[in-house]
Amino acid sequence: MLVNYPNGTKVKQSYILHGNRGMSLEHDINVTNEYYLVHDIAVIYKKPTPITVVKVDFKSRMDAVIKEAYYKTPSTTDYNGVYKGKYIDFEAKETRNKSYFPLANIHTHQIKHIKKIIEHGGIGFLIVRFTHYNLTYFLDGSKLISFIENNNRKSIPISFFQKEGKIIETKYAPRLDYLKIIDELEKEGEASEKIS
Amino acid sequence: MLVNYPNGTKVKQSYILHGNRGMSLEHDINVTNEYYLVHDIAVIYKKPTPITVVKVDFKSRMDAVIKEAYYKTPSTTDYNGVYKGKYIDFEAKETRNKSYFPLANIHTHQIKHIKKIIEHGGIGFLIVRFTHYNLTYFLDGSKLISFIENNNRKSIPISFFQKEGKIIETKYAPRLDYLKIIDELEKEGEASEKIS
Repeated sequence: MLVNYPNGTKVKQSYILHGNRGMSLEHDINVTNEYYLVHDIAVIYKKPTPITVVKVDFKSRMDAVIKEAYYKTPSTTDYNGVYKGKYIDFEAKETRNKSYFPLANIHTHQIKHIKKIIEHGGIGFLIVRFTHYNLTYFLDGSKLISFIENNNRKSIPISFFQKEGKIIETKYAPRLDYLKIIDELEKEGEASEKIS
Repeated sequence: MLVNYPNGTKVKQSYILHGNRGMSLEHDINVTNEYYLVHDIAVIYKKPTPITVVKVDFKSRMDAVIKEAYYKTPSTTDYNGVYKGKYIDFEAKETRNKSYFPLANIHTHQIKHIKKIIEHGGIGFLIVRFTHYNLTYFLDGSKLISFIENNNRKSIPISFFQKEGKIIETKYAPRLDYLKIIDELEKEGEASEKIS
């Protein structure tokens, strides 16, 4: 497969191990979660897409074919699981926008869900990729909530991610090591506790 | 709606607040989880049923109708969430069998999943209802794993649940207070730590 790079060169994609242009954020997170699972680091899964089934044909008892169904609005985030005994919960979104992350990308009840998770002692956050720069940010749930509660804006500027978020590096394996950021944040939390 | 009771009397179901014959375990757990959510006790959801979508008709951009899809075998359990900062994960099953819980009711990878959850510091368990007696048991994941690893049986006898499990009472609200059992187990754990 040939990939057009901005400078006009064409490169065979199979040779680009560290770049992931054209690879979706969802795919990157899924392979990362597989890595975490296989290497006994964490157990984190993407939840199935919620679907309302209306009509099912039963060819045989084991062989059901869904003939009519509709996508439902999710009430929670897409990913959750356990890491070092702690509850992990996040939503991942990519945007082509160069300067803003439009909040229309996340449902209101998903934001409420992240807030609840934090209130119950879980680790809730957002992963946002700005595809134009191929930059993936980790934004702590508390910072997301604080932005939404203190702003009337319908988007979060990239500067907020630069200031309050952390960049998740894209590597070979694990592809998108977001748990490393959690470790860093925990260490910083411990450090600030020691200082205060 | 009239319900036939074993002694032959017929009772209008709407009057029986505390019985739940005819009500499914899944429904009972869902209303319990709603209660936990509304009363700020825990955030626990049932995961959507995993479905592979094959054909979708797009009437309009927002109006997609799934025309062909299939049920997938789940790789995890049905329920998970957070309670007091801890990761909660369980599977719930009912059986009409009077003396055994057939292990065919749980997929092998669901059992492996529960094992992994425990290894990563989460709380994994099984809720089994014997519908004939209308008795609902909480079985700690470690006891489930230990039974499976030490037996070649394809079912768990009810005596094992009586001995190693805990009965979850059916009440008005919360309908099926399984988190109470987790509190009890934690207390017992602390108690045995103090003794040893």
